[in-house]
Amino acid sequence: MTLRVGVIGTGAIGQEHIHRITNKLTGAKVVAVIDVNKEQVQAVAEKIDAKIYETGHDVIKAEDVDAIIVTSWGPTHEEFVLASIAAGKPVFCEKPLAVTAEGCKRIVDAEIAHGKKLVQVGFMRRYDESYRLLKETIDNQRIGEPLIVHCAHRNPSVPQGLYYGAMPIVDTFIHEIDVLRWLLNDDYVSVQAISPRKTRDAAEDLQDPLMVLLETKKGIRINGEIFVNCRYGYDIQCQVVGETGVANLPEPMSVLMRSEAKLSTDILVDWKKRFIDAFDVEIQEWINDTLKGEVNGPSAWDGYFAAVTADACVEAMEAMNSGKIVPISMPECPKFYL
Amino acid sequence: MTLRVGVIGTGAIGQEHIHRITNKLTGAKVVAVIDVNKEQVQAVAEKIDAKIYETGHDVIKAEDVDAIIVTSWGPTHEEFVLASIAAGKPVFCEKPLAVTAEGCKRIVDAEIAHGKKLVQVGFMRRYDESYRLLKETIDNQRIGEPLIVHCAHRNPSVPQGLYYGAMPIVDTFIHEIDVLRWLLNDDYVSVQAISPRKTRDAAEDLQDPLMVLLETKKGIRINGEIFVNCRYGYDIQCQVVGETGVANLPEPMSVLMRSEAKLSTDILVDWKKRFIDAFDVEIQEWINDTLKGEVNGPSAWDGYFAAVTADACVEAMEAMNSGKIVPISMPECPKFYL
Amino acid sequence: MTLRVGVIGTGAIGQEHIHRITNKLTGAKVVAVIDVNKEQVQAVAEKIDAKIYETGHDVIKAEDVDAIIVTSWGPTHEEFVLASIAAGKPVFCEKPLAVTAEGCKRIVDAEIAHGKKLVQVGFMRRYDESYRLLKETIDNQRIGEPLIVHCAHRNPSVPQGLYYGAMPIVDTFIHEIDVLRWLLNDDYVSVQAISPRKTRDAAEDLQDPLMVLLETKKGIRINGEIFVNCRYGYDIQCQVVGETGVANLPEPMSVLMRSEAKLSTDILVDWKKRFIDAFDVEIQEWINDTLKGEVNGPSAWDGYFAAVTADACVEAMEAMNSGKIVPISMPECPKFYL
Amino acid sequence: MTLRVGVIGTGAIGQEHIHRITNKLTGAKVVAVIDVNKEQVQAVAEKIDAKIYETGHDVIKAEDVDAIIVTSWGPTHEEFVLASIAAGKPVFCEKPLAVTAEGCKRIVDAEIAHGKKLVQVGFMRRYDESYRLLKETIDNQRIGEPLIVHCAHRNPSVPQGLYYGAMPIVDTFIHEIDVLRWLLNDDYVSVQAISPRKTRDAAEDLQDPLMVLLETKKGIRINGEIFVNCRYGYDIQCQVVGETGVANLPEPMSVLMRSEAKLSTDILVDWKKRFIDAFDVEIQEWINDTLKGEVNGPSAWDGYFAAVTADACVEAMEAMNSGKIVPISMPECPKFYL
Ligand SMILES: NC(=O)c1ccc[n+]([C@@H]2O[C@H](COP(=O)([O-])OP(=O)(O)OC[C@H]3O[C@@H](n4cnc5c(N)ncnc54)[C@H](O)[C@@H]3O)[C@@H](O)[C@H]2O)c1
Ligand SMILES: NC(=O)c1ccc[n+]([C@@H]2O[C@H](COP(=O)([O-])OP(=O)(O)OC[C@H]3O[C@@H](n4cnc5c(N)ncnc54)[C@H](O)[C@@H]3O)[C@@H](O)[C@H]2O)c1
Ligand SMILES: NC(=O)c1ccc[n+]([C@@H]2O[C@H](COP(=O)([O-])OP(=O)(O)OC[C@H]3O[C@@H](n4cnc5c(N)ncnc54)[C@H](O)[C@@H]3O)[C@@H](O)[C@H]2O)c1
Ligand SMILES: NC(=O)c1ccc[n+]([C@@H]2O[C@H](COP(=O)([O-])OP(=O)(O)OC[C@H]3O[C@@H](n4cnc5c(N)ncnc54)[C@H](O)[C@@H]3O)[C@@H](O)[C@H]2O)c1
Repeated sequence: MTLRVGVIGTGAIGQEHIHRITNKLTGAKVVAVIDVNKEQVQAVAEKIDAKIYETGHDVIKAEDVDAIIVTSWGPTHEEFVLASIAAGKPVFCEKPLAVTAEGCKRIVDAEIAHGKKLVQVGFMRRYDESYRLLKETIDNQRIGEPLIVHCAHRNPSVPQGLYYGAMPIVDTFIHEIDVLRWLLNDDYVSVQAISPRKTRDAAEDLQDPLMVLLETKKGIRINGEIFVNCRYGYDIQCQVVGETGVANLPEPMSVLMRSEAKLSTDILVDWKKRFIDAFDVEIQEWINDTLKGEVNGPSAWDGYFAAVTADACVEAMEAMNSGKIVPISMPECPKFYL
Repeated sequence: MTLRVGVIGTGAIGQEHIHRITNKLTGAKVVAVIDVNKEQVQAVAEKIDAKIYETGHDVIKAEDVDAIIVTSWGPTHEEFVLASIAAGKPVFCEKPLAVTAEGCKRIVDAEIAHGKKLVQVGFMRRYDESYRLLKETIDNQRIGEPLIVHCAHRNPSVPQGLYYGAMPIVDTFIHEIDVLRWLLNDDYVSVQAISPRKTRDAAEDLQDPLMVLLETKKGIRINGEIFVNCRYGYDIQCQVVGETGVANLPEPMSVLMRSEAKLSTDILVDWKKRFIDAFDVEIQEWINDTLKGEVNGPSAWDGYFAAVTADACVEAMEAMNSGKIVPISMPECPKFYL
Repeated sequence: MTLRVGVIGTGAIGQEHIHRITNKLTGAKVVAVIDVNKEQVQAVAEKIDAKIYETGHDVIKAEDVDAIIVTSWGPTHEEFVLASIAAGKPVFCEKPLAVTAEGCKRIVDAEIAHGKKLVQVGFMRRYDESYRLLKETIDNQRIGEPLIVHCAHRNPSVPQGLYYGAMPIVDTFIHEIDVLRWLLNDDYVSVQAISPRKTRDAAEDLQDPLMVLLETKKGIRINGEIFVNCRYGYDIQCQVVGETGVANLPEPMSVLMRSEAKLSTDILVDWKKRFIDAFDVEIQEWINDTLKGEVNGPSAWDGYFAAVTADACVEAMEAMNSGKIVPISMPECPKFYL
Repeated sequence: MTLRVGVIGTGAIGQEHIHRITNKLTGAKVVAVIDVNKEQVQAVAEKIDAKIYETGHDVIKAEDVDAIIVTSWGPTHEEFVLASIAAGKPVFCEKPLAVTAEGCKRIVDAEIAHGKKLVQVGFMRRYDESYRLLKETIDNQRIGEPLIVHCAHRNPSVPQGLYYGAMPIVDTFIHEIDVLRWLLNDDYVSVQAISPRKTRDAAEDLQDPLMVLLETKKGIRINGEIFVNCRYGYDIQCQVVGETGVANLPEPMSVLMRSEAKLSTDILVDWKKRFIDAFDVEIQEWINDTLKGEVNGPSAWDGYFAAVTADACVEAMEAMNSGKIVPISMPECPKFYL
């Protein structure tokens, strides 16, 4: 059986997902596409011989569409996800699930009301080989109970004028927010923010680097560094300190060189290369699960939790260095999502 | 378009290839199978809804079979590959291409006579990510011209009574023989063998470890260690010393741990895990190439070269420690294969 | 010329310093010793043919004693250091300089009044090869201006009943407090403390691990982990994140092994081995400087700064998780110490 | 007690040894010096207030000289060592002990005839921390019995016109020859040489890189790479493959950096820095041993064995690529040296 997929939003990542479904993955076929950019969707549709619809809602309603992928702009996600639930169709929605916590909550409520899980959110780090190895190490009790996490998200640079304010949280740290909850199998309860000395490479409207201190229900402390003008490379670090040992996220595979007075491996510069394989695994597993009528990836609840946490982080950031501890308040996780 | 594949030999690796084509890869479908073990082939065929034939030749001739995979026992390979060429069908043959150099030569001759490349040999290391990164490093001139290769093939252990005599060459080192030619883009001209002190873990009928010294046309010296009872793990090492630097084959990705007074990463023990991804890439690329009417993987010529080299290595091994230098004599590579 | 040294306190570290001066270092000789433990000092004196005095003050006054080493219990340090200053004799005092910040201040005042630097404090990490390499890297601007420091002080275990309360600060983190000021060439302005989930291996009277967040004058943020029941080894980590790169404290030299399915180096378990060479360098440089009439090591001011910082850290620890930011208030550094 | 040392030859290394004895080490004093370069020896003597003699023999005979250090040109070593033995005085002789195997043999015979060990040869690698750690690992049976050694001696470059012919053996590999015998606690029985593709950076009169294959009594095979124009740094590698594991010579301590898209540590370029600490340890231990009337360092026998081995290596090098296996013939080691 082949999963017939409709894609809403054929921009950068939409096209990438279409490409991987068509050329690299198995079990699915993109049969329907839509984008407000008509020229672009035309070009995309031609290459894969898919039908173009008028609106996202038409795609969702189309009889020959089994499942939806939402890769349009963030503010449109909620609407299309709700419509998919209404239509009873499985939907993979790129992050964010919705641009507000309330929006996410509405999706959670709708899905529970529908009575069956349909929604998966595009937090691809959970599919990354290095994170999976790290999680396996923790789950196998090789370091005992986790107590502290030191992590860092470093980009070589960000475009001035296009990246500012709360973006270190909502655009960058959002991935740590989701993946660490999953990694630790734990929830957040509070957050604090601290601003280190600012790099000369950061624009005026950006605090860079930034330190975010999260506390979990079990008492684990996460000290998260976000440094988006670090110059030297795209570098995702994660060190988990447990009761009996410490485990580090593996570095991407690289040739160990002896050259020019250095013993070295390469660090990536282009962020796209870091999680490219994770996207493949993510979509393949989504296809497989969907064909079986299951949702096993990041759920609407996870998307909601990430949104609430991000809001608290932004609040903490706005009060940074004041010692203010912002609570992260979530209702109990409904049985539906356990 | 979907490539319709017929598989001859549904033993261990045959089943693995069928599984990956069916569940993980895209663009192909196994439609025909055959094995002398009737019960086994029955079970395999059922799961994937493929037709069972009487003989390999029937599979090759079947109208709805576009391409052949040969995964029967080594001694049967030559016959099925020749038949595939005769039928004008693309054929992927697990190593060895044939059990003698003469057999390989017959395939080369038949393929040239046929006038179009059809044969690919299952040397999967060329598809391994770590080898590809190493080759890229060399090809990008990051270490200048290669001068020396230090490599090691280490297994934790081998079954006594089942692994002996020349098997370190024909079963184990054969992969280095192929992959280093490809890595260095060079051919071999001679070989010598040396026996180090034997480990107490080796059976009487086995020289373990063994050192094989290969010389290439360009004068590169390869010093190959084969150590199949090394106890500590399955470990494939390759260090290329060039004019301006040294490059090492990356280690498989692993979590860096601090635990029990050690800073460590895990070394694999099970060889199957080491190249599992490489097999996926290998077969996917073979499917893609075959659909385009191309053969870009290890050719019949490569299979022939490997066979001749292995024969010379065995001869050197039989004269080990005598200083005997065994020439590796091959005709010029026909234009057909350049 | 040979420096004639008098040692006050011939306990564990006193004997070690005597041993190194006598057998490993050059330029000095221990001629006078004293300890309230008469039996012990007798045994020590005999081995090196030194004169035993009645009190520390007698050692300080002795005509043939050029310089003093104070290795008695902490609460006695202030008295002997003040007496040494009064006698105009150079004095090396093991940490702490005094057990209260006020005591340190009295020493600073006395030394300034005396008009010439005489006092050096035993912060030996500044003499450790790995810290020196790290400082060199920073000073050579290889990572640009430092912005963040992630550091960890991990012990395999501490004796229950003997290590509790504020000891993670005053006994353990005190070394980080001094060495990071020196490393960064910066002063502290405030501190905050956070308690991560507690390890099951910690006694009731101990918060372990503990996180201490220091802020420097230049705005650098130090996130210090103190974990004294980490089980796996004695491990001192320090990572400095700068504007253009990140530098890590080198690990102690160790053989890289492949064994038992692990690629590993050893981590020390015994803390004594970690800085044993640093003590040699420290005392040798102190001898050399003293012979030249100089003090170039950690000064009385450094000892005072460490004491004030430790007090603030303890205050922060007592208010941990409250968000309380404790200021670290020091007068301007007098010209005398610049 | 202070050892009164006479130094014959105050060139580069002579001055270095004088400097370390005077300023860094303990237990000795240079009281007598001589060099055929009168101006130079004058300058050296003044700084340390030592007496200048007319000839090396005068130094050896001087009543107030307890022990001799020979750091003159190689061809003069034998004469001064024999004279020291004749005078019954301990002598530390920089490598080579003598420029011919016969010369070394005469020294061995003289020392045996004298009846007491007096001679130590300047093979300083045995005192290097990294080699000591490696030896400890082997001696503690952490890798089982050694079977193979892969080692490399790489220099960034050598001066054209000054380094040629057999110098890769006699000037460079000579250190491996001694240190590996000590490391493995084994003797050599044969050698073979192979020339890899030559680097374009090597002069016409130099085979670079070069591979030397040594066999030991126990059957261990050493595959030694000598590459003196490797460009990238001064790099000493040694990997010992044992029955249960593999141990690698530790790299010199260095800061792990993330910078300019590389995760790197520095490789030394200046060879002088690599073993500078080893020289200190070597001379200090020689002083200590000499004061106790012992010789525990590399003996005259070791110097003799190195000379015979080097001669065989040179013979193998002259017949390289012929498959010629040159025996290394030594008499049984006399009890005197066991
Ligand atoms: N998981 C990740 O790491 C990751 C990476 C990249 C992007 N994303 C997410 O994917 C989404 C898309 O990002 P992108 O980089 O592809 O952006 P993009 O701007 O390249 O593409 C978005 C496309 O959506 C189309 N679109 C907008 N509104 C629409 C509507 N109402 N109906 C139909 N089409 C509409 C636009 O015309 C555009 O072509 C964003 O939410 C982004 O956060 C996630
Ligand atoms: N590239 C690699 O690393 C790799 C790994 C494993 C196996 N191989 C190669 O694959 C081949 C198969 O190995 P395997 O481990 O699967 O062995 P296997 O014994 O498990 O399977 C071989 C199968 O071929 C069948 N067979 C034998 N003769 C036949 C014939 N004439 N017609 C039809 N079927 C026949 C057998 O009944 C058996 O089921 C071998 O040549 C082996 O060298 C390569
Ligand atoms: N820099 C470091 O890492 C480091 C390491 C160990 C100890 N220290 C410091 O060194 C000091 C000594 O520590 P230790 O481990 O050697 O302790 P210790 O108890 O082994 O020795 C202290 C000695 O001082 C003697 N003493 C006490 N009061 C005296 C007095 N009034 N007059 C003469 N002698 C007196 C005691 O009898 C004892 O022998 C402490 O301040 C400790 O903090 C520093
Ligand atoms: N262990 C090592 O790694 C190492 C390193 C460097 C040198 N060495 C050895 O040390 C020796 C000296 O090397 P160097 O680099 O100092 O050379 P150098 O040329 O700098 O010094 C040798 C000195 O010996 C003097 N000399 C020569 N003949 C003499 C004689 N008959 N009497 C007195 N003095 C005489 C010369 O005038 C010169 O000053 C050599 O044998 C060299 O192989 C060993």
